[in-house]
Amino acid sequence: MRIIVTGAGGFVGRALVRRLTAEHIIVALDRACDSLANIPGATLIEGDLTDEKVIAAAVGEGCDAVIHLATVPGGAAEQDPAAGWRVNIDGTAALVEAVCRARKAPRFFFASSIAVFGDPLPPAVDDDSPLRPRMLYGAHKAMMEQWLATMTRRGALDAASLRLPGILARPRAPSGMKSAFMSDLFHAARVREMFVAPVSPEAMMWLMSRERIVQNLAHALTLGRGAVGEPFALTLPAVRCSFGALVGEVARQAGIGADFVRYAPDVALEAGFGRQPPLTTRHADRLGFTHDGTVEELVAAAFRGIEAEESEKHA
Amino acid sequence: MRIIVTGAGGFVGRALVRRLTAEHIIVALDRACDSLANIPGATLIEGDLTDEKVIAAAVGEGCDAVIHLATVPGGAAEQDPAAGWRVNIDGTAALVEAVCRARKAPRFFFASSIAVFGDPLPPAVDDDSPLRPRMLYGAHKAMMEQWLATMTRRGALDAASLRLPGILARPRAPSGMKSAFMSDLFHAARVREMFVAPVSPEAMMWLMSRERIVQNLAHALTLGRGAVGEPFALTLPAVRCSFGALVGEVARQAGIGADFVRYAPDVALEAGFGRQPPLTTRHADRLGFTHDGTVEELVAAAFRGIEAEESEKHA
Repeated sequence: MRIIVTGAGGFVGRALVRRLTAEHIIVALDRACDSLANIPGATLIEGDLTDEKVIAAAVGEGCDAVIHLATVPGGAAEQDPAAGWRVNIDGTAALVEAVCRARKAPRFFFASSIAVFGDPLPPAVDDDSPLRPRMLYGAHKAMMEQWLATMTRRGALDAASLRLPGILARPRAPSGMKSAFMSDLFHAARVREMFVAPVSPEAMMWLMSRERIVQNLAHALTLGRGAVGEPFALTLPAVRCSFGALVGEVARQAGIGADFVRYAPDVALEAGFGRQPPLTTRHADRLGFTHDGTVEELVAAAFRGIEAEESEKHA
Repeated sequence: MRIIVTGAGGFVGRALVRRLTAEHIIVALDRACDSLANIPGATLIEGDLTDEKVIAAAVGEGCDAVIHLATVPGGAAEQDPAAGWRVNIDGTAALVEAVCRARKAPRFFFASSIAVFGDPLPPAVDDDSPLRPRMLYGAHKAMMEQWLATMTRRGALDAASLRLPGILARPRAPSGMKSAFMSDLFHAARVREMFVAPVSPEAMMWLMSRERIVQNLAHALTLGRGAVGEPFALTLPAVRCSFGALVGEVARQAGIGADFVRYAPDVALEAGFGRQPPLTTRHADRLGFTHDGTVEELVAAAFRGIEAEESEKHA
């Protein structure tokens, strides 16, 4: 298949491209493609999703599938709402239009987010939970889920929106993500630094390793047409654990004491990322999407991801 | 109150402006304001919603409320998707941003549409029915409902999206509405012309007179802040009747035989506008929104509306 991956230079994108190039023709689109330089076999297109020429270059004669990861994430969209709208709404719509024009009904996997559910969250979240975003980012995702579903009902597209939980462990660099602290915990443990946690040990969160999200996205490509069905959006499974349990396991695997963490909860972060209730994801489970299994496996996979990035950087 | 009405020169807008000028300061915005020339007391702003300067002129120092009727309707949006997006998505977003910037949390009433439910419709529609649009127009409305709800959750706005059924009886002029035939029936009866109906007598539809929608919009302005609540959108009540019953009553009130109508159903129109199932609108009912009561009253109000327009035209 000829597959366009947007946001290909990002944390999830580059691992996904690395995995998919073995089997597919990959067109990797990002504002900066430096991180993809070592990956053989992918066509790199550097440029912005808001630039029609860039989209045209990526789409070319059309594609079999798109995995659309590029986004202005939560914190960054709050800082610059106009940029958020430009990329998350207009850029996504322009990409959709271009791929639909080039070829009939390509597959389209949209990285949506649990931010569509808003906060405070209901006492439990399942496939029937209403979308009540509060962050601009969450609204953008919910709106584009609706647009992609409409295009799919019309037969112009074969789309599925996949709502991602918190993904571990992102690089230390600023990501524009409010949830960056979850990843920073791992980096602090590796270098034996003190870590000030902006949530309490009781904070409950939905998490997935990068390794697992890459596996889930590769799995999505293997689903038959129409497999996802209405509403053409699904919440991916996640390991749900307390921040305290995460800290304990991170410390254990890093061979240090859990007292490397000091807690200084921030009310807004605790409300936005620390009150994630029990989650059931029957629709995704039935389709074969999976989470990491246990906190132990989640943490191990997150550390493996950090080590892989380090060794690539030095390769 | 200082109230901005967009689409003020349109079929619903001009009747609404006429009603509201008695009590409020009205800023009437439309691409063409000719139809408003006879209405004293309204400030007319002629220009396009996609023009920032036009929006800035309308918003001025801010407003207490907006009634946002301007739209590229269903048929027109299918003909020109780019224009539909520009007005229905970008224009609405620009208006929202401008009114939020000028004053904290103005009231905002958004004319949404039953097109958000899509087709085929489920066996019954109520306040819990999922939004599964198929028309671009329906997707635009669903997306902006979500955006307005998010802005309301954030406290930037106090919005309610009101989903309108078919409104009777629009002028004969091309409206860009696929449902225009419902209104054309009335005009044919008045001038005793044969009418070819593009749906069968069994087609079931949700209808409201212009008189009634104007009353409902005026009623919306009297609701307390926060009265609408989640999801900040509601489906308005409607008279549900068969096209055959409508024809019978139109003929009776026009003093002609029902045989002025010949039926030549169009499969797409019948599917899109003739399969409207039983409708319950508890949320709207509780808030005091009403439909026309009976087919007889609906038809009488629609004829009154046509006569009022005729006499205004000749005034």
